[in-house]
Amino acid sequence: GTPSRYWLESELASFGVTEQPSAENADAVFDAIGQRLAEPQFRPRALLQRYGIDVLATTDDPCSDLSAHAALAAVAGLAARVIPTFRPDRYLDPAAPGWLEGIGALTDASGHDATSYPGYLDALRARRRYFIEHGATATDHGVADAGSEPLEPADAHRLHGAALAGTITADEAVAYRRNMLFEMARMSTEDGLVMQLHPGILRNHDRATFERFGADTGHDLPLATGFTEPLRPLLEQFGNDPRFRIVLFTVDETAFSRDIAPLAGYYPAVFIGAPWWFLDAPDAIGRFRSAAVETAGFSKMAGFVDDTRAFCSIPARHDMSRRSDAAFLARLVVEHRMSQHDAVATIENLVVHQPRRVFTRTVA
Amino acid sequence: GTPSRYWLESELASFGVTEQPSAENADAVFDAIGQRLAEPQFRPRALLQRYGIDVLATTDDPCSDLSAHAALAAVAGLAARVIPTFRPDRYLDPAAPGWLEGIGALTDASGHDATSYPGYLDALRARRRYFIEHGATATDHGVADAGSEPLEPADAHRLHGAALAGTITADEAVAYRRNMLFEMARMSTEDGLVMQLHPGILRNHDRATFERFGADTGHDLPLATGFTEPLRPLLEQFGNDPRFRIVLFTVDETAFSRDIAPLAGYYPAVFIGAPWWFLDAPDAIGRFRSAAVETAGFSKMAGFVDDTRAFCSIPARHDMSRRSDAAFLARLVVEHRMSQHDAVATIENLVVHQPRRVFTRTVA
Amino acid sequence: GTPSRYWLESELASFGVTEQPSAENADAVFDAIGQRLAEPQFRPRALLQRYGIDVLATTDDPCSDLSAHAALAAVAGLAARVIPTFRPDRYLDPAAPGWLEGIGALTDASGHDATSYPGYLDALRARRRYFIEHGATATDHGVADAGSEPLEPADAHRLHGAALAGTITADEAVAYRRNMLFEMARMSTEDGLVMQLHPGILRNHDRATFERFGADTGHDLPLATGFTEPLRPLLEQFGNDPRFRIVLFTVDETAFSRDIAPLAGYYPAVFIGAPWWFLDAPDAIGRFRSAAVETAGFSKMAGFVDDTRAFCSIPARHDMSRRSDAAFLARLVVEHRMSQHDAVATIENLVVHQPRRVFTRTVA
Repeated sequence: GTPSRYWLESELASFGVTEQPSAENADAVFDAIGQRLAEPQFRPRALLQRYGIDVLATTDDPCSDLSAHAALAAVAGLAARVIPTFRPDRYLDPAAPGWLEGIGALTDASGHDATSYPGYLDALRARRRYFIEHGATATDHGVADAGSEPLEPADAHRLHGAALAGTITADEAVAYRRNMLFEMARMSTEDGLVMQLHPGILRNHDRATFERFGADTGHDLPLATGFTEPLRPLLEQFGNDPRFRIVLFTVDETAFSRDIAPLAGYYPAVFIGAPWWFLDAPDAIGRFRSAAVETAGFSKMAGFVDDTRAFCSIPARHDMSRRSDAAFLARLVVEHRMSQHDAVATIENLVVHQPRRVFTRTVA
Repeated sequence: GTPSRYWLESELASFGVTEQPSAENADAVFDAIGQRLAEPQFRPRALLQRYGIDVLATTDDPCSDLSAHAALAAVAGLAARVIPTFRPDRYLDPAAPGWLEGIGALTDASGHDATSYPGYLDALRARRRYFIEHGATATDHGVADAGSEPLEPADAHRLHGAALAGTITADEAVAYRRNMLFEMARMSTEDGLVMQLHPGILRNHDRATFERFGADTGHDLPLATGFTEPLRPLLEQFGNDPRFRIVLFTVDETAFSRDIAPLAGYYPAVFIGAPWWFLDAPDAIGRFRSAAVETAGFSKMAGFVDDTRAFCSIPARHDMSRRSDAAFLARLVVEHRMSQHDAVATIENLVVHQPRRVFTRTVA
Repeated sequence: GTPSRYWLESELASFGVTEQPSAENADAVFDAIGQRLAEPQFRPRALLQRYGIDVLATTDDPCSDLSAHAALAAVAGLAARVIPTFRPDRYLDPAAPGWLEGIGALTDASGHDATSYPGYLDALRARRRYFIEHGATATDHGVADAGSEPLEPADAHRLHGAALAGTITADEAVAYRRNMLFEMARMSTEDGLVMQLHPGILRNHDRATFERFGADTGHDLPLATGFTEPLRPLLEQFGNDPRFRIVLFTVDETAFSRDIAPLAGYYPAVFIGAPWWFLDAPDAIGRFRSAAVETAGFSKMAGFVDDTRAFCSIPARHDMSRRSDAAFLARLVVEHRMSQHDAVATIENLVVHQPRRVFTRTVA
């Protein structure tokens, strides 16, 4: 009896389950799904094809050898390209668990000595290049805040050393992380990887559950998030650069009309990410459109990104998003704010062309 | 000519006034209401019955002897139970006017010497128990912010002494108050009183009016309010405890989709309070539903709480809330996001069952 | 294909262009508009009349001699009054470029020696009086934040001297600016100029573009903005004064239901400015109404202010605003929250009477 019923039913229907799930029929529904999953037409590669997926992007550790991607790329007749995305969070934040080990791993994977700051930058550059060779078109950055103030090179050297020695302070670690966000933008202007940024999550809110079950167990929670001030250093430097493109995501929906749409309306490099995570639902998507489009227009939308861990939910979620967009456009037509002809062209753009264009590397 | 007309008319109709009030008929309307109030069927106890009120909860000073509640409980044939709620704000905040006097009053009322910190905690425990014996099921906490960081016992002792001596600093008083919010949650796990929290009000904005007319004269105003970070210590400790239940209220509506719904979606103990005070109106209630339900579901809603000081407004406000909920559910049905059968079950739950369940003590 | 089409078409239609603009017909449309602008009935004064504009207020430098206004006032048969507005931002903020030169200009324009703090206040008073003599009814203040804490006179003297000597610190300059906002409110109680306040813009976000093309080139961007706490000193002092009126504007729409409507609901002096700049569009205006009216009522609305730099857009924007208001009121009628009779009276008030009333000086 919750509004997510709508998706759930779409997903269940794709497994041939049409009755409403309940405590009474739970076992039968579970068994029915299990039977289906054992059938050849429900194997992952068959579903890739049935779902009409052209490209599926994973997020990957910068030191991954991407062998799974290589193997998939070698499969004859695979319906979709499955490409990696460069997700370097823990390599950029000395306060993150595993940063020190990451320096060793980066050195090993890249052949550059990441214990020096220039070697560390070179190692990251090399790994980005490796990802590009395996099909990557984008990077992905989950950060506590969107701070992007660059450090003077001497300070960056010094903090890199302090981080290695374990003597970096909490404030210095924040300054280091923000500098590295700036450096990632600079590297994007060099290699053309599209930058995705999603700040404003308090990770592992429930420490006891984190200690018992680990990360990503449901208690990452939104924080009030600003973009206008913290992203200023990065956007002043790269926001007008034709080789740079950044897609901004938020789970604080107040940022859509106040920060993100005005930034996208001004800076050519800024695109607006789909409402995501907690906001990835029909009403929230409607509020997003209403808050963002009047300032930034449809042409700065990056298109729907479902960010799912549940493969089978992909069609239902994209279907929901498209219906929601169609409803928004239909209202504009009914209110005489857009012609039906333009509305049809717009939704085709939003669904078909725009995401392809936005997530294409900016330099060859 | 304002949207509140709708309620006003409901209230007036309950007094048999059907014409639109205006400058011209003001005296006549006033007299008509006065006549009605003198009739036996408009006495408070008669209205309790006519309004179909089962339970009415007041908020009370922790040192109150609750004699009025005892007297009402002894009335034969009273339609409703009128129960107290434990509202200890000024006893928990050394910066609040009257804190020092409160220590004396607590000592007198409880028989525990509240001038020591352990005695103070025992006194609060005893008064909570006294409230429970008089029917209380909940506590109510209006705080400047939702900070809940516990103090080390030695620090709490020290600050308690400093507060008694009048030497506590402003920062220490804040730390003390936040520690006491944590302690209130701990006591709730012991005695099962449901905790209601409503932070984010700047009290007595207009100092001159406050000095002339006193508190609660219309100039308590909302502040930007967060829950995710400040409530973390309290929720980490008690948010998964089956003996704990907390209902979160806000007048900063941005907190619904960003803080409150995500917290309620994760922590079993967290329930979502009704839009309240400035947000207790049809459009605001609609925005609240849209912002909270997609993340937290209907099952984490605490139900409508009207928080009125005007007894006769109760039916009109509950009626408004129910119509607003019905309109929200009707939209979900029309959009094929919910079956009509489920919508009917949901509104019955929201109005009839959920509030009873949420405001029942968690331990017997 | 964006929602702004609606306005665009209204504007184009006023030039006799009815076809949809496109890359193909751009030159022809441009030429058609150019031809029209050369016709006598499209000269500015003819348009003033055709647009039915009664009063048009410009914003002006406090040291302007307002000779253009004087010249216009002397034109026989001009359809509209064109009045100045006192906009003193750079004279009140020692951190603003040109503050020091402004002191000299103030001295020259007013005959008061603005190098002393009392002379500076007298100079501002004299210039406000000069503006009033040229028809001004209001002041206009764009500030980084709404802080309004007054300084002790000795501190104000000292900071004025430090600002002149170039030794004022950044924090002191902020304190000085906030004190001057307070002083502007005090002067409004003396001379009756209506105060307009619009805080929360980060000016010149893109430094490189600012250095190349100057200010007001599209990269002034919104910040999270509060009013309740920062305006408290000013409103405590003047908010109940019948000689004072302040209109609050925001581009952070979260402030409507949290700060501005509650302040307007309490303080007689506070009125609610129209959604403006980034929020000056149909959906945003609808959200504004929904967020503000239930708390503050229609009677605290200042009416639509289009703040345009494009003269020819005035009719289209006012038309859009009125349609949007009509749609809002129509919904209230359909939902039985307002009678049709009241709705008609309300929109007449919002469009015709209220703006005239709100922007009339409070003292003669």
